[in-house]
Amino acid sequence: MVIVKGIISMRKRIYEIVDIAKKTDKSSSIYDYTMLLIIVASIVPVCFKTSNVLFIWIDRITVLAFILDYIFRWVTADFKFKDKGAKSFLLYPFTPFAIIDLLSILPSLTALNMGFKLFRLLRLNKVFKVLKILRYSKSFDLILNVIMKEKQALLAVCYLAGGYISLSALIMFSVEPDSFNSFFDAIYWAVVTLTTVGYGDIYPVSNLGRIFGMVSSFMGIAIVALPTGIITAGYMNELNRSDNKSNR
Amino acid sequence: MVIVKGIISMRKRIYEIVDIAKKTDKSSSIYDYTMLLIIVASIVPVCFKTSNVLFIWIDRITVLAFILDYIFRWVTADFKFKDKGAKSFLLYPFTPFAIIDLLSILPSLTALNMGFKLFRLLRLNKVFKVLKILRYSKSFDLILNVIMKEKQALLAVCYLAGGYISLSALIMFSVEPDSFNSFFDAIYWAVVTLTTVGYGDIYPVSNLGRIFGMVSSFMGIAIVALPTGIITAGYMNELNRSDNKSNR
Amino acid sequence: MVIVKGIISMRKRIYEIVDIAKKTDKSSSIYDYTMLLIIVASIVPVCFKTSNVLFIWIDRITVLAFILDYIFRWVTADFKFKDKGAKSFLLYPFTPFAIIDLLSILPSLTALNMGFKLFRLLRLNKVFKVLKILRYSKSFDLILNVIMKEKQALLAVCYLAGGYISLSALIMFSVEPDSFNSFFDAIYWAVVTLTTVGYGDIYPVSNLGRIFGMVSSFMGIAIVALPTGIITAGYMNELNRSDNKSNR
Amino acid sequence: MVIVKGIISMRKRIYEIVDIAKKTDKSSSIYDYTMLLIIVASIVPVCFKTSNVLFIWIDRITVLAFILDYIFRWVTADFKFKDKGAKSFLLYPFTPFAIIDLLSILPSLTALNMGFKLFRLLRLNKVFKVLKILRYSKSFDLILNVIMKEKQALLAVCYLAGGYISLSALIMFSVEPDSFNSFFDAIYWAVVTLTTVGYGDIYPVSNLGRIFGMVSSFMGIAIVALPTGIITAGYMNELNRSDNKSNR
Repeated sequence: MVIVKGIISMRKRIYEIVDIAKKTDKSSSIYDYTMLLIIVASIVPVCFKTSNVLFIWIDRITVLAFILDYIFRWVTADFKFKDKGAKSFLLYPFTPFAIIDLLSILPSLTALNMGFKLFRLLRLNKVFKVLKILRYSKSFDLILNVIMKEKQALLAVCYLAGGYISLSALIMFSVEPDSFNSFFDAIYWAVVTLTTVGYGDIYPVSNLGRIFGMVSSFMGIAIVALPTGIITAGYMNELNRSDNKSNR
Repeated sequence: MVIVKGIISMRKRIYEIVDIAKKTDKSSSIYDYTMLLIIVASIVPVCFKTSNVLFIWIDRITVLAFILDYIFRWVTADFKFKDKGAKSFLLYPFTPFAIIDLLSILPSLTALNMGFKLFRLLRLNKVFKVLKILRYSKSFDLILNVIMKEKQALLAVCYLAGGYISLSALIMFSVEPDSFNSFFDAIYWAVVTLTTVGYGDIYPVSNLGRIFGMVSSFMGIAIVALPTGIITAGYMNELNRSDNKSNR
Repeated sequence: MVIVKGIISMRKRIYEIVDIAKKTDKSSSIYDYTMLLIIVASIVPVCFKTSNVLFIWIDRITVLAFILDYIFRWVTADFKFKDKGAKSFLLYPFTPFAIIDLLSILPSLTALNMGFKLFRLLRLNKVFKVLKILRYSKSFDLILNVIMKEKQALLAVCYLAGGYISLSALIMFSVEPDSFNSFFDAIYWAVVTLTTVGYGDIYPVSNLGRIFGMVSSFMGIAIVALPTGIITAGYMNELNRSDNKSNR
Repeated sequence: MVIVKGIISMRKRIYEIVDIAKKTDKSSSIYDYTMLLIIVASIVPVCFKTSNVLFIWIDRITVLAFILDYIFRWVTADFKFKDKGAKSFLLYPFTPFAIIDLLSILPSLTALNMGFKLFRLLRLNKVFKVLKILRYSKSFDLILNVIMKEKQALLAVCYLAGGYISLSALIMFSVEPDSFNSFFDAIYWAVVTLTTVGYGDIYPVSNLGRIFGMVSSFMGIAIVALPTGIITAGYMNELNRSDNKSNR
């Protein structure tokens, strides 16, 4: 009985430490900053094309920390989902952050076992490590909040922008098939043009194609800029609201 | 008498099904989604450069569906224009969507008859199929609504942007005729520059041309961005208004 | 005495016709539309690189019309400046539109006399013809109105943008002198980058240059976008105000 | 005693002249405009790649003026920091503008001594001269004011934009390592793309890279545009507030 109570209280303490820190809880703050440091360290090898002994050891150590972190979070899942009880342990591995955590661990595990043979194939998976940082970012919380609030408007506007891009690509592909190897190239052209990035790797060369390209960009830039406008406006509102709150 | 009544009630039912669905009418919803699927299927062959037997059969089947849809809509036109009576059947083929519907059918008809000899020439016409989707798009309705509301402001602003683009092109063409094959090239340069796309396929190389290009873009980007600004602002107003309505 | 009165009333009538039309005055409207047509016709030869007999005759006829228009406006200048009396005839040639009118006539006069020997040199001057259109453009009036109203804010902001561009160019020219033939090239790079046009004809290649280029564009785009923001906001205000007026 | 008083009153007068002018103080205005002229003159040699006798003499004379200006400001520092007393003379050299002033002088001093051997190395330092202009710019004051006011919002948003740029670069570098020589190249690509400059010197070529590039720019432009939006909005607010004040 005492042992069970001890385990529960220990698990509670682990949960408090592992979860995002309150300012007053020093151990929790230290854990968060350590994890941030480990995540950043784990990303360093991804920023280089070659591998060396140091990078291999960084990989081994950071993945161990990630595994411990994953276990800690899993065994305390019932504190996270307060009202789900034992079900929490089943639900936890399917939360977005748990999936990111798992995907951060898996490629390195393979690497440990198979001696970096799959290294090139696994490069992409290694990127999931960086997403672990999002857990600790307040700016990300804020922008996610804005996106959630304006979800319906954003969805409608993204649908519209996507539709306009597809339509432009389709017309351009029909007008000037020689400039594009495939329909995908036309989509790429439309996105690069309508976001006004304009690399200059693909552009219309025939007169008809240029005329359509001009009409398309003149009309379409407004439509493709709508998501940007909505996010900016939503962010400003969020700022003003929190300003008003703090002024009261 | 009974037959006439039967035909009228059948035509009414057809109209209810063919026209945009109310949420409660299941047949109408099914018809709409089926048409959407057929439209999307009919566009697939346009996204590829080569043709094959599958694409030919997709074309044949989808065009049949389009013809039936066209006939259904035409024979129930009097329900659409409630107060025009028999005149509706004369007016209907000249409504924008009826023209799009016809243009979606015609190229495929030729294709059926002439064995795809005119295939390349007709590529562009095939694009009209995609415009049929607009009938089912609420986002398009909303943006069309915004454009209609701000029509006068947008017209004035597009006139201004068009004028500025022409003026810039004319001056640039006079300042640096060697960089442009024709006046059309200068117009193309002005649009690509003032929308800030900037592919980099045409740009001024002489000092005088560069100076004018800098002045022109510094002053002109604001003017060419006005339509974007008006559409964004109009869209935001529309959103806020519908938010206020639903909140009351 | 009667002759003097006749001349005055005739000059008054000429002024009414030549000046921008009220809707009720048909002769004046006709004069305006004829002048617009002549201006557009006079620009057509500028849009082509080669000259031919037709273009020479268009030039001769349109310049005659411009000369008559210039004389009409000059001899009725006292109606324009209502309170200046005889001084008006001295002041008129120095008004902006009178200068544009004169510059539209001069190159063609030389052309008449010297047989197009100076044709290439005079290309640029020919562009002044197109500025004559501004007299008849309401959109131009509106935007000029906005610019005048926000004059102080725009000046401050343009000064800031100009300063930032110069500073960026200076630093870039010092950081990476090999990519730029002269300081003018660096200014050109800064304008093309900070307006986000980005042709790709000049860009930093050294690491230091790229770092500075990134910092400069990340911070500077906001500053260079300020004039665009002010003009858009000013235009919106103007639109809302005139909407409110017409709603009352 | 009289001498001390004389020195104090002389120092006070120097401070009044050297510091930014009130409109009524003519000597101070003259000093400011002379310094502006000297600063501009001192920048001229930086705008050219070659050096000549004239530029050497401009350098010598302007650096003398800068040294005098630096001494004047230092010995009157106690008037600037009104309540710090003698400590002012210790604090002054560490104020931002004093550092800029010193950095404007140092490279030219070396130049005087060493006969331009280090000329190329010192090019960058010479740019600090131009920053001296900021002391006299009211537009810079205004924008600095806006930045200070929105400091917290801007910091959060820049953090977000920086994070998004790093994330994009990391994923792109993993997806398509062949297009980028190093991770720095990927960061450069992300900045050039997400600010929509799009030079076209680095861009994805593989299909996977292009898909990610499209998704990244479609979502990221909004986030990278947030600082621009905040500065524009803050500047507009500042303008409106000062308008309201002057209207009261």
